[in-house]
Amino acid sequence: MGRNAIQTNDLIMTTILTGKVKTVISTSDPNEVLIQYEDRVTAGNGRKESRQEGKGTVCCEISRILFEKITEVGIPNHYIGMHKENVMRCKTLDIIPIEVVVRNLAAGSIVRQTTIDEGTEFKWPLVEYYLKDDAKDDPLLTQDRIIQMGYNMEAVGEMEIMAREVNLILQKIFDSIGLTLVDFKLEFGYDLGHSIFLADELSPDGMRLWKDGQSFDKDLFRKEQGGMMEAYKYILTQLQSL
Amino acid sequence: MGRNAIQTNDLIMTTILTGKVKTVISTSDPNEVLIQYEDRVTAGNGRKESRQEGKGTVCCEISRILFEKITEVGIPNHYIGMHKENVMRCKTLDIIPIEVVVRNLAAGSIVRQTTIDEGTEFKWPLVEYYLKDDAKDDPLLTQDRIIQMGYNMEAVGEMEIMAREVNLILQKIFDSIGLTLVDFKLEFGYDLGHSIFLADELSPDGMRLWKDGQSFDKDLFRKEQGGMMEAYKYILTQLQSL
Repeated sequence: MGRNAIQTNDLIMTTILTGKVKTVISTSDPNEVLIQYEDRVTAGNGRKESRQEGKGTVCCEISRILFEKITEVGIPNHYIGMHKENVMRCKTLDIIPIEVVVRNLAAGSIVRQTTIDEGTEFKWPLVEYYLKDDAKDDPLLTQDRIIQMGYNMEAVGEMEIMAREVNLILQKIFDSIGLTLVDFKLEFGYDLGHSIFLADELSPDGMRLWKDGQSFDKDLFRKEQGGMMEAYKYILTQLQSL
Repeated sequence: MGRNAIQTNDLIMTTILTGKVKTVISTSDPNEVLIQYEDRVTAGNGRKESRQEGKGTVCCEISRILFEKITEVGIPNHYIGMHKENVMRCKTLDIIPIEVVVRNLAAGSIVRQTTIDEGTEFKWPLVEYYLKDDAKDDPLLTQDRIIQMGYNMEAVGEMEIMAREVNLILQKIFDSIGLTLVDFKLEFGYDLGHSIFLADELSPDGMRLWKDGQSFDKDLFRKEQGGMMEAYKYILTQLQSL
C-alpha cells in the first residue's frame, strides 16, 4: 500500500495523479481508476486558482450525462459508471499528451493568435492539436510538428474523427437546451490493447458555451465576470431535463 | 514631398516604412523602393535592441550576394541592384503578412514548443508559417488557420515551393563555406501584376547558421554571447571568396 493509500468499502485506493481540478485514484482492478472531481477551478494553466463549493459534483454530473450520450452512439470512451456523486469509475488509460480542440466559432487563443474576429463561425469545424504540457503553456501543434515528434498519424486521424463525432453529438445536445457550443477540448488515451478511447471530462471547464452573447463556461472565471457556479448549475439542470 | 522627404542625386525619396532594422524609402519610380539596412539589432520582437556599428552594410552585402545567387537560378525576388553600400534597390511589393520559416534542424521556438530536442535533424525540411504581427508576437499558424483567415492556399503553396527552392540553394552555399543552415525566415510580396516575389532580406539576422556547434547568427545577440559582428563579418568574407 502506497503512502496515500486509503481504505474504502471494497477497494484499496491510491492517488496516482493529482491534476489541477481532478484526482486519479487507482483501484484493486488494474483496468479501472476512480476520477475524483475537485471543488477547484483554475485558469491560465494554474496561474489563477480558486475553490468553488460543489463544483466537483456539478462537473462530474454534467460529465456523466455527456459520457452516457457519447456511449449511446458507440464512441469508445473511458466512462464505466459512478462511484459517488463527484467520483467517476473510468477505464485505465495511457493518456496521449496531445489535447484535441474542436472549434465551431472563434474564441480564446485563436482570436489572439490570428486576424480572425471573436464569434466568427468557421466554414467547417476546426480540429486543432496542442501539446499537453503546462510548463510549455500547451503550445499549438501543426501536423508536421506532430509527425516530427514521432506520433503515429493514423492515431491522430482517429482522434480527429472521434472529435468530429463528439462535436456533432454535443452540438445537438446543447442546441436543444438553447446553448451554442463554441469550442471544446478533448483528451484521449490508449487502453492495454492499444485502442484509443475518449478520456478526461466533458464539462463547461473544458468547453465554451454561449447563450444570447453570454458565456456559460469557465470564461466567467477567466475574465472574472462572476456567476460561474450559477451557469454550471443551470447547464446541469437543463441537461437533467432532457 | 512628404515630411521625411530627402533629395539625393536623382531621386526624390520619402520614408514609407520604418522597420526594426530596415527603412523602406520610396523613389520617383512607383515600381521601385530603396531598402536601407540600419546599424541596429533587435531580438524578442524589439524587446531587446542595440546599435552595432557597420551592421547595416554587412547585412546588406550578405543579402546582395545571396539575392544574386537566388536570381541566377530564376527564383523571382525583389532585388534590383545596389543604391549604396547599405541601401538596396528593390521592386515595390505588397508584403504578405505571413512569415515563412524553413527548418532543417530543430532550434529556437520549435524546441520550446514541442518535445523535439535542439539539433534534431528533420526527416525532411519543415516549412512553417507565422503571422507577421509583432503585437501578437508572430504566432505560429496552422494550414487551417491560414485558410480561415481567408488566404489563397494556392499562394501559400507557391510560397512553400519557393521557400524549399531557396533552402536548397542556401544550404549548398553555406555548406561550401563550412556552415550548417539550421533554419531561416522568408517574407514574400505581390507585385502590381499580383505575382509573388521573395522579399525582405537574406542575412544572419533571419537565419541560424552553425559551425562546430557554435552559432554564427543573431542567437549570439539573443543569448548575449557576444561576437555577433565578428560572426557576420566572417560570413561575409567567406561568401565574398566564393
